[in-house]
Amino acid sequence: MKIYETRTAPNPRRVRMFLAEKGIDVDYVQVDIQKGENLSPEMRAKNPLGKIPILELDDGTCIAETDAICTYFEALQPEPPLMGKTPVEKGIISMWQRQVELAFMMQVGMCFQHTTGYFKDRMVPVPEYGEQAGINAAKYLSILERRLANNAYIAGDHFSIADITAVCAIDFARVVKIRIREDHTHLQRWYDAITHRASAKA
Amino acid sequence: MKIYETRTAPNPRRVRMFLAEKGIDVDYVQVDIQKGENLSPEMRAKNPLGKIPILELDDGTCIAETDAICTYFEALQPEPPLMGKTPVEKGIISMWQRQVELAFMMQVGMCFQHTTGYFKDRMVPVPEYGEQAGINAAKYLSILERRLANNAYIAGDHFSIADITAVCAIDFARVVKIRIREDHTHLQRWYDAITHRASAKA
Repeated sequence: MKIYETRTAPNPRRVRMFLAEKGIDVDYVQVDIQKGENLSPEMRAKNPLGKIPILELDDGTCIAETDAICTYFEALQPEPPLMGKTPVEKGIISMWQRQVELAFMMQVGMCFQHTTGYFKDRMVPVPEYGEQAGINAAKYLSILERRLANNAYIAGDHFSIADITAVCAIDFARVVKIRIREDHTHLQRWYDAITHRASAKA
Repeated sequence: MKIYETRTAPNPRRVRMFLAEKGIDVDYVQVDIQKGENLSPEMRAKNPLGKIPILELDDGTCIAETDAICTYFEALQPEPPLMGKTPVEKGIISMWQRQVELAFMMQVGMCFQHTTGYFKDRMVPVPEYGEQAGINAAKYLSILERRLANNAYIAGDHFSIADITAVCAIDFARVVKIRIREDHTHLQRWYDAITHRASAKA
């Protein structure tokens, strides 16, 4: 099996960190998204949306979307669990994973794409929307701060995929100058702990 | 247990349809999102993002996000499987579920919110962005048409949560005048089959 990815992009890092926590090695194929290599007919045959990362199995089956790739590996090798073991754990982790992704990471991405015009060859940037997305992203850090005041990790007592998504998104947010604030002491404590895990360098 | 929802909103319908397929009965509490009842301190204590649906368990544990609520019930009662049984099935279904949601349903929602100003008391609508989102949503229907030319259901041979998300999103898309086109014959065949399931009326 192999994974098509762009080393510097935030979603592929989520997959690499997830696999590092599982101790799973996979071959990687680099795709230059800035040049649009991901939009070729060959890549669109693997993923109709023309995005990376994409997991390609040995029989040619392709699974795109970071969350879907992680779902596959979690089912293939449940230990250590990163998406919960009991129904309640699975539900709570899925909730935080999604909220961190949609209310923070995606807002950062929209801010980046719409204010910088990075992908203006393939989309119509709307800077006013990008600014709103940046405001939304910055606000969400206060929700994480409150959550981490009473929890060691984002989804509760245990490290999970939600922590991976959050740390990758926070590092990515530097591109639009959104950072952990000085008064976000719990978030900073959590960030320091997560970035000291070996998987953070994957 | 109970679910806080708004009967007419598209995400709660996804949960109801999922539970109808599983044969699970739950009590529902109606929340008026247009009046902003979902934004009260009580509701934000249940879900920091102040959105519905929210599943509240008997011990007070709350799980927000449609996908997370479905993840909980799938783990609690695996039959009939709506999110896959094998690792590959789980990955493929998760991929389509996400793509239908992010590349279609969310684009419809953004088009609705940004072009109509429906939630202008709590967000800054950017009509130009809403128009782009509508263009994106309409384009995605052609991806579904091509997919359904060779597959009975969106994720392959079996009905899944991806079909639920797609049918709820297509029905919701009428609010922004996005509909299945006459030349989308495979999509129409699929739509007719899905809407004839008893769960479609849940």
